[in-house]
Amino acid sequence: MNFHVLTLFPEMIMQGLDISIIGKAIGKGIISLEAVNIRDYTLNKHKKVDDYPYGGGAGMLMQAQPVYDAWKAVNQKIKDQGRDEKNIRVVYVTPQGKTFCQSMAKEFAKEKDIILLCGHYEGIDERVLEEIVTDYISIGDYVLTGGELPAMVMIDAIARMVPGVLSNETSGETESFSNYLLEYPQYSRPEVWMDKKVPEVLLSGDHKKVEEWRLERSLEKTKILRNDLYEKWVEDNQEYFIKKAKREERRLKKERKKGKLI
Amino acid sequence: MNFHVLTLFPEMIMQGLDISIIGKAIGKGIISLEAVNIRDYTLNKHKKVDDYPYGGGAGMLMQAQPVYDAWKAVNQKIKDQGRDEKNIRVVYVTPQGKTFCQSMAKEFAKEKDIILLCGHYEGIDERVLEEIVTDYISIGDYVLTGGELPAMVMIDAIARMVPGVLSNETSGETESFSNYLLEYPQYSRPEVWMDKKVPEVLLSGDHKKVEEWRLERSLEKTKILRNDLYEKWVEDNQEYFIKKAKREERRLKKERKKGKLI
Repeated sequence: MNFHVLTLFPEMIMQGLDISIIGKAIGKGIISLEAVNIRDYTLNKHKKVDDYPYGGGAGMLMQAQPVYDAWKAVNQKIKDQGRDEKNIRVVYVTPQGKTFCQSMAKEFAKEKDIILLCGHYEGIDERVLEEIVTDYISIGDYVLTGGELPAMVMIDAIARMVPGVLSNETSGETESFSNYLLEYPQYSRPEVWMDKKVPEVLLSGDHKKVEEWRLERSLEKTKILRNDLYEKWVEDNQEYFIKKAKREERRLKKERKKGKLI
Repeated sequence: MNFHVLTLFPEMIMQGLDISIIGKAIGKGIISLEAVNIRDYTLNKHKKVDDYPYGGGAGMLMQAQPVYDAWKAVNQKIKDQGRDEKNIRVVYVTPQGKTFCQSMAKEFAKEKDIILLCGHYEGIDERVLEEIVTDYISIGDYVLTGGELPAMVMIDAIARMVPGVLSNETSGETESFSNYLLEYPQYSRPEVWMDKKVPEVLLSGDHKKVEEWRLERSLEKTKILRNDLYEKWVEDNQEYFIKKAKREERRLKKERKKGKLI
């Protein structure tokens, strides 16, 4: 999968994603990342890419022409590399967009090429957005200086969903949001740290009990912190609660037989 | 305001935020940013910071001790610099957290110091989180490789709300989400680009008409793309619609007088 980022700060994109999992995937040739400097496509002597907005207002706007020409150059490159340059999704990173989420990351991971357009200053001339943008996407309800950080966030989330990027393919699946539940607490060595012990069940070696304990902790955490996600899970997993109720019933029956309960 | 980031990738934080508005604010001494390498606080020879999770499962966990000692070192530094090191908010960047938003950015911008803890691998030993973390925050419902990108996103959003960081103080206020509305479309030179004209009203020089047109476009856009934000705005701005209805009534009356309408 090939990411193309149209930006005024190409070095920020390249440095910021160079490390960790993304850097490794680039090294393995599973994904590629190029940052195209919009400024290289200005037609004026001073390499100016911005101007005042019509109708007044604070700040400067990125002009249509350099953005358009940078986009055209990327399309040409994709074509030259023998891939279909038509129907390539162009994502404009903007607070006005649909809110990015895990299912969108999965969907985008199926594409061969994606172009991400990063705005700066007060925004970009509307006409070039109308001309080239296919998806308006926001990473959340907060305002940032430019589109670079959100573009990096999206690339990271999408790249993780490309087969082969994560060493353990199931890893992407078991993490938060893929199944609506937040993660259970985790513990590593040592067994006791600052008087705090690792929960007994995790040391028991009883795989089934560990799984149950973890699911219970996930459900607890999600119910408290993100009831919206909890309710989605409950809707999709009715049988879990039915089974649990039946198990509890059997347990009570047994105890009654033993004479422990009346 | 001072940002302290506990991370395994300090260079990513420093390079990624060095440019643009944040870099300028650091230069002006309005904000400071330090990235503390958690790895510098391991006690073992091999500088290992991770180990297997108790109870099994994929991946490695960051251990409690180096994270705790890195946090203690930051506290000591704050104290040494003559600031109150107690009650400093420690934000753990995690999908299990409350979702970050603009009002949280504003709230955090009032702090003198903030510590951001970036996880990696499959997470961090729960015991150290219990010990030091005050806020669990997520930037959105998607899974990322580590806490570095979200920490940078939060720092960018928060720093913009610190007085003096934006050249034009009102700029932070007029942008999206501060008033619930998405931004109106903007246009810059030239007046005609690829046969697309700048809307007439923006060239009229009639300030009041421009404002009205922009608000109408904002409302339109928000209603279509983010009805949740639109409804919030409507709730807070009932008088706008009342005024608008009255204006329309007056217009109709006038036209009736002129005999244009029956």
